[in-house]
Amino acid sequence: MSPAPHQAIAPQPHDMGPRGYSLPLSPSGSSAMLTPPPWHFSGDVIMVDYRVDPDAAARFLPPGLTPGADPGAAAAVFAVWQWCSDSGEELSDPSRSQFSEFLILLGCDHEGAVMARCPYAWVDQAVPLVRGWVQGMPKQYGAIHQTRHGLVGRAGSRRAEGSLFAGNLSVHGRRVAEAAVTLTGPAQEPPALHAVPLAHSLVAPAWTAPVEQPAPLAASEVTDVEFGDIWTGTAELEFFDALDEDFAGLRPVEVGAGHVFSYAETLKGGRALPLRGE
Amino acid sequence: MSPAPHQAIAPQPHDMGPRGYSLPLSPSGSSAMLTPPPWHFSGDVIMVDYRVDPDAAARFLPPGLTPGADPGAAAAVFAVWQWCSDSGEELSDPSRSQFSEFLILLGCDHEGAVMARCPYAWVDQAVPLVRGWVQGMPKQYGAIHQTRHGLVGRAGSRRAEGSLFAGNLSVHGRRVAEAAVTLTGPAQEPPALHAVPLAHSLVAPAWTAPVEQPAPLAASEVTDVEFGDIWTGTAELEFFDALDEDFAGLRPVEVGAGHVFSYAETLKGGRALPLRGE
Amino acid sequence: MSPAPHQAIAPQPHDMGPRGYSLPLSPSGSSAMLTPPPWHFSGDVIMVDYRVDPDAAARFLPPGLTPGADPGAAAAVFAVWQWCSDSGEELSDPSRSQFSEFLILLGCDHEGAVMARCPYAWVDQAVPLVRGWVQGMPKQYGAIHQTRHGLVGRAGSRRAEGSLFAGNLSVHGRRVAEAAVTLTGPAQEPPALHAVPLAHSLVAPAWTAPVEQPAPLAASEVTDVEFGDIWTGTAELEFFDALDEDFAGLRPVEVGAGHVFSYAETLKGGRALPLRGE
Amino acid sequence: MSPAPHQAIAPQPHDMGPRGYSLPLSPSGSSAMLTPPPWHFSGDVIMVDYRVDPDAAARFLPPGLTPGADPGAAAAVFAVWQWCSDSGEELSDPSRSQFSEFLILLGCDHEGAVMARCPYAWVDQAVPLVRGWVQGMPKQYGAIHQTRHGLVGRAGSRRAEGSLFAGNLSVHGRRVAEAAVTLTGPAQEPPALHAVPLAHSLVAPAWTAPVEQPAPLAASEVTDVEFGDIWTGTAELEFFDALDEDFAGLRPVEVGAGHVFSYAETLKGGRALPLRGE
Repeated sequence: MSPAPHQAIAPQPHDMGPRGYSLPLSPSGSSAMLTPPPWHFSGDVIMVDYRVDPDAAARFLPPGLTPGADPGAAAAVFAVWQWCSDSGEELSDPSRSQFSEFLILLGCDHEGAVMARCPYAWVDQAVPLVRGWVQGMPKQYGAIHQTRHGLVGRAGSRRAEGSLFAGNLSVHGRRVAEAAVTLTGPAQEPPALHAVPLAHSLVAPAWTAPVEQPAPLAASEVTDVEFGDIWTGTAELEFFDALDEDFAGLRPVEVGAGHVFSYAETLKGGRALPLRGE
Repeated sequence: MSPAPHQAIAPQPHDMGPRGYSLPLSPSGSSAMLTPPPWHFSGDVIMVDYRVDPDAAARFLPPGLTPGADPGAAAAVFAVWQWCSDSGEELSDPSRSQFSEFLILLGCDHEGAVMARCPYAWVDQAVPLVRGWVQGMPKQYGAIHQTRHGLVGRAGSRRAEGSLFAGNLSVHGRRVAEAAVTLTGPAQEPPALHAVPLAHSLVAPAWTAPVEQPAPLAASEVTDVEFGDIWTGTAELEFFDALDEDFAGLRPVEVGAGHVFSYAETLKGGRALPLRGE
Repeated sequence: MSPAPHQAIAPQPHDMGPRGYSLPLSPSGSSAMLTPPPWHFSGDVIMVDYRVDPDAAARFLPPGLTPGADPGAAAAVFAVWQWCSDSGEELSDPSRSQFSEFLILLGCDHEGAVMARCPYAWVDQAVPLVRGWVQGMPKQYGAIHQTRHGLVGRAGSRRAEGSLFAGNLSVHGRRVAEAAVTLTGPAQEPPALHAVPLAHSLVAPAWTAPVEQPAPLAASEVTDVEFGDIWTGTAELEFFDALDEDFAGLRPVEVGAGHVFSYAETLKGGRALPLRGE
Repeated sequence: MSPAPHQAIAPQPHDMGPRGYSLPLSPSGSSAMLTPPPWHFSGDVIMVDYRVDPDAAARFLPPGLTPGADPGAAAAVFAVWQWCSDSGEELSDPSRSQFSEFLILLGCDHEGAVMARCPYAWVDQAVPLVRGWVQGMPKQYGAIHQTRHGLVGRAGSRRAEGSLFAGNLSVHGRRVAEAAVTLTGPAQEPPALHAVPLAHSLVAPAWTAPVEQPAPLAASEVTDVEFGDIWTGTAELEFFDALDEDFAGLRPVEVGAGHVFSYAETLKGGRALPLRGE
């Protein structure tokens, strides 16, 4: 139960100096805030399908991505995660291996392949936040809460007909979004937007020199996807006036079905996607 | 999804002024921080049996309580709870209805009845902290983390042989306690110290006048107890030098079995227990 | 730089059992969450005078308190505090000795004496929250932020003409109140509602038996009051729809002057106030 | 008092897609988590000079940096900041414009110029954390507390002879470092390591392709430096066994003077530094 050091990386010639997959660099590389991928995730998800103004959604797509066959398709996703590196060592300290997340997904296409774009995401821990930026996933800091899956008692929310699963996001002390799903029965298939790769923009803020515009595109490479039983239900979804006009442009114009399920994946790295015209 | 007001209490003559089960008092009573009992709890528990120096344990027992048949029997309990009042309204806002807890239990007797004494407890939310003080349960504020029960994936901790369930407590930025249970198999019975009533001291700090010494004793009155499947395993438990000498007196001198289970109860109120000689 | 134990209290006969000014009781008394008064406070305050509907204010006054000469007079107060017990030991650990506070004050009289009533208060640490309940001060948990007093730089807010001092309160991830004061010049006198004693209700939620109704009244006994230079200015104050209707009844109907100043006091205990007709 | 949008950036042709100085990209650019520099900082600092094993320090220096004239010179710095962008708009919401920081500095040279290297830094807010990574500053998330500068009262720490200013850092619920400075008198000059530029490594964790090794070096470009009165004193500094062996290599082998002062600067961007042999 001693503090678990990060996985060491392979030795390198001394004159390369301190090292690590990420900052902070240190003599052995063990101080790096991020372990290198793969990263294994296991979580519980509350997801609501909804529709946005298709023009607003299109304005969030960078060159190389197009709205796809169902313009305006979107989803709001609450998830609570437990994660570990390949060593599994983070699991021995639950103060390091857990976080909550809220994100929005927009349907899109890349060169005919069906994908999803994540215009906004929030997490409540710094490691997954920075790991998001490595991938091009726009994770910011928020306070995220969602109903726990309980097995016993009047306050324990079973995955069963009639149960309520709620989630909410607050940012800088303002409520941003709330969702609620009342379960109606088991589903046969995962929700559409949870079954496609994400296409991110690898944005590097300019510091010593200008940066490439538009930012390169990358798809997340995921393996070992596992779904638990999937429940579906009726859903509510509300966004509040807490952020900017751009975010407000993605408000629900129609709310669809809700979904509650356990889910796992392994994130192995990123694959460059060509921009339009390359 | 609007903010849920607390349960109103019965009207009273106007000249009684503002009202409520607790502070803050307000015209309708709806501002009270605490709803009146009953309170329904549903949670996941990681529990480690251990032994303390029997003399040290005895020094934590107030008049009216005696060490019982197995002096030195103790347990360390991590729990993550979802709770609601009788109305159930808190469940619609998971930012209000969840908290984590760590507590220590010591075996004791009251007039021949087997009970447990809680010398120390910590929670991470203010409502259960204050509710603890109403009961005489010495809840303080801490940061508490424990392994989540996961159903899928390599980072998801199943309730199955070989799985690790860990918990830890930090107070004011110092690690106070860590526990880990590696499951070996299902158990037939709940852990002994989780199946007896708690005997608390109703301590009211002196303000305008001296207070009764020793403080009155009260037993928590609990109904609707429900256990999910109970798993047992080998356990580790460690306390660190982060608090005072009194707390250090309850360090483990021997560590016993670990237990992992879901649990629910309804807390209905308190019952006065006579002190010695009454 | 070791963890500072609380002040020990006087020895008592062994058969009195564990002891302490508050929970948790322990053999030496050193584990008590609260040290006994006096408590010394030193802070920076942003305060806005405002007016509420006098009828709404009257409904928050318990028997024994009357609206006073200026019904509807109110103030909203943001403060960031550093505190210590008589030993001063908390000052060596700033993770223990600081908190932020927001509270509302209503003008009132008790048997002809000018006092103030605090219908709502929030803090961001557990120790001052529980200490509030000992006094009858209705402290709840909130996230509170206010402009720091800075001495240098473009981002440093001087106490000087034209400077902006802002504060805000969020509860359970919802913005509850915001204030802003733009300084216009020094003031000669402390704001009226900051210069009178507070009259609190010693509410003890019922547990093993019914409780006295209405709750006893107590005045806080304060010494060693010290004001730094007092600045005044124009003010804004806004409450949001985040809490219940009772709280909403105390919304500003008119906003007066703002005040920015440093302030210190020592809180020595409470003095019982007779209820009406006693 | 409405939520302040980030500064818009200049329009660009529509087919460039969503934009922003950083993630998240959005149609107008207003959703970016980071505003572009310059960033203005105003803070209060507690700083302790100390010495580390010179060989350990050298192992933290990348190619291009050498130990300098005083190998083993180091400092530990606690700071609480208020910051804003050029618009100043963040100052109207103190929940966005404040953070605390702890960092370590090592003396070094770059091509004969005296500089400092920051091997470790922690902050308690996400925006400065990510802004650190843009600069190559290895900011991680920690809980940081330091004595407030108080003007009145027994619990208010004056900048005066005999006053105690303390700071501490905790990471994942473990105490990492503590410092304390007891003031002895005013100083004539800023502490040496606070008066030189920082040399950072622009580490970009590999994602879709390998990355340049070693990482490029950059110096922070700072203007509008302003010091308030500087106080000096005797100091204590202690590191605890909470992190990895690399961090432990930078433990104090000798503790020097302490410094307490207000400080402001404007960070305008980064300047590339040549690596060795370029």
